[in-house]
Amino acid sequence: MTTQTVRLSHGSGKGLQELLSTIIIPALIPGGAGVLEDAFVFDIPGRRLAFTTDSFVVSPLEFPGGNIGTLAACGTINDLSMMGARPMLLSVSLILEEGFAFEKLTRILTSLSEICTQMGIRIACGDTKVVDKGKADGLFINTSGIGIVTVGISLSAAYAKPGDAVIVSGGIGLHGVTILAQRENLHFASAAESDCAPLWPLAKAVLDAVPHTRVMRDATRGGLASVLHEIATDSKVSIVLMESEIPVPQVVKGACSFLGMDPLHIANEGRFAIIVPPEWADKAVAALRSFAIAKDACVIGQVVEKDRFPVLLKTSIGGTRPVEMPPGELLPRIC
Amino acid sequence: MTTQTVRLSHGSGKGLQELLSTIIIPALIPGGAGVLEDAFVFDIPGRRLAFTTDSFVVSPLEFPGGNIGTLAACGTINDLSMMGARPMLLSVSLILEEGFAFEKLTRILTSLSEICTQMGIRIACGDTKVVDKGKADGLFINTSGIGIVTVGISLSAAYAKPGDAVIVSGGIGLHGVTILAQRENLHFASAAESDCAPLWPLAKAVLDAVPHTRVMRDATRGGLASVLHEIATDSKVSIVLMESEIPVPQVVKGACSFLGMDPLHIANEGRFAIIVPPEWADKAVAALRSFAIAKDACVIGQVVEKDRFPVLLKTSIGGTRPVEMPPGELLPRIC
Repeated sequence: MTTQTVRLSHGSGKGLQELLSTIIIPALIPGGAGVLEDAFVFDIPGRRLAFTTDSFVVSPLEFPGGNIGTLAACGTINDLSMMGARPMLLSVSLILEEGFAFEKLTRILTSLSEICTQMGIRIACGDTKVVDKGKADGLFINTSGIGIVTVGISLSAAYAKPGDAVIVSGGIGLHGVTILAQRENLHFASAAESDCAPLWPLAKAVLDAVPHTRVMRDATRGGLASVLHEIATDSKVSIVLMESEIPVPQVVKGACSFLGMDPLHIANEGRFAIIVPPEWADKAVAALRSFAIAKDACVIGQVVEKDRFPVLLKTSIGGTRPVEMPPGELLPRIC
Repeated sequence: MTTQTVRLSHGSGKGLQELLSTIIIPALIPGGAGVLEDAFVFDIPGRRLAFTTDSFVVSPLEFPGGNIGTLAACGTINDLSMMGARPMLLSVSLILEEGFAFEKLTRILTSLSEICTQMGIRIACGDTKVVDKGKADGLFINTSGIGIVTVGISLSAAYAKPGDAVIVSGGIGLHGVTILAQRENLHFASAAESDCAPLWPLAKAVLDAVPHTRVMRDATRGGLASVLHEIATDSKVSIVLMESEIPVPQVVKGACSFLGMDPLHIANEGRFAIIVPPEWADKAVAALRSFAIAKDACVIGQVVEKDRFPVLLKTSIGGTRPVEMPPGELLPRIC
């Protein structure tokens, strides 16, 4: 039996209906989607909402710890979570290359759907396009999301203040090293597994424990260095990190020292930076550590008055060096 | 001077910031985007909202009457409009191929932005990914949108009732024939210009004139035949069209007769079907005709009790034939 694959004829008309009814909807919405309207309609009496979007182009599509579907769910869930918004609705839009295997598509969409189910999120609307062979790299996914912002919470990358504590939710660099190991066949890093995870439960725990939390940002493309740069710039402050406190898993240390990369530049998909007033740091860390994926959460630095450099690192041997943004794309198509 | 192009290094870190601040944000949000948060936060006291998503992969990227940016704005605006929702917020997510020219990108994003400005829509959030040369076809765009549903309006493809009038907002098939003419270098159809247009003003005029409107659907991929099939199926009715009443522009007639295609199968990007109780048909048509792009709006058929065929055509010479859905992808990558 030959593997069934996406054909150009699945792009519209009967072919599209068939693809939707036999593959995509069963994988995404196991209970069925009912009448498919052009847009999804919902009521929200007097609530503050959050809306975000993200496209996913990771290569390879499947990797230890996840796949592009896991990423597409977590990426948008995490963007909402970082604003203190409980993720509520997700859209899923696919760009498929002719020849893509149904089996792989089902596996990926099922991963996406499972995370939504776990998090109580409804997949509200979607879209599917098929392009000819050689015009896309297998599968690209866009997800957009709407969430309800927790009452009384106000987070922004512009809210960090000198004196605040900087916390990271766990060991950094696993997602990036995992993708790199897969792509480049790095045997010494083959044990790496992506940290990809939905962060809403962790974000909620932090906000419940510390409603005064100033900033939450997930450290995806460009790594922890990039998000701290963004926060420092938007808040007009600097951030000083203590190298000895930053949790870096052994496999990430090994890969980075071998390849001459900085763990602070490596992408994560399930780690976030949290900035809280200093007296609340212990409570935030304790809230995080109640989750297995955040058992290594800790304070890694402090916000200070604006300095010449946005982000500084106190090294283990006592020196201080500026932490740069990654110069460009270290690892293309990491998410 | 060489043309500046997207590079892989624009995918993250400083490179991405540069691309955003010099190209993408200026084109999309001329007034500047302020602090870029992970998600967009907004208040809506006790309103009914609509949420939709669409990815655009049209080839070629630019064509008479529009470009992929025009389509990306209109597609999502129109999906919201068809639900009676005033489009309010739009997300814009780009997948760019390495080597894509900045000039073309700016032109496309400016088209997108201009339509949003005209319609009073805010571009609320976005995302940009860069993939390596040969892994995407220049540029793909996803837009998702949120709209506020007009109070008292309730539209659904499931609401058509026997006796209702079926209206189309203007001459059909122009978008599809335009793309085909560009792609296949059809000189006899080179005068064709896409009908791509934002339909909210038209939809609002119909709803103001006929609050009892039952169904509105834009006739995009798969053409008018596909949307009427969907409506017939969802409403458990059949639809009888009068061939002589269906407005088909001369250039579409010519292209279809030459190529053996059915105008009912050709995609539109600025035409929609409206179903209203029969006594309201004249009011709906008059409301549409107040717009230049809908001057050919007219009643083209009637909803009847469910028949063996979902859609039937009374031909000009007096016969009746079933109208099929297009069998598959007639024109790949039409939007």
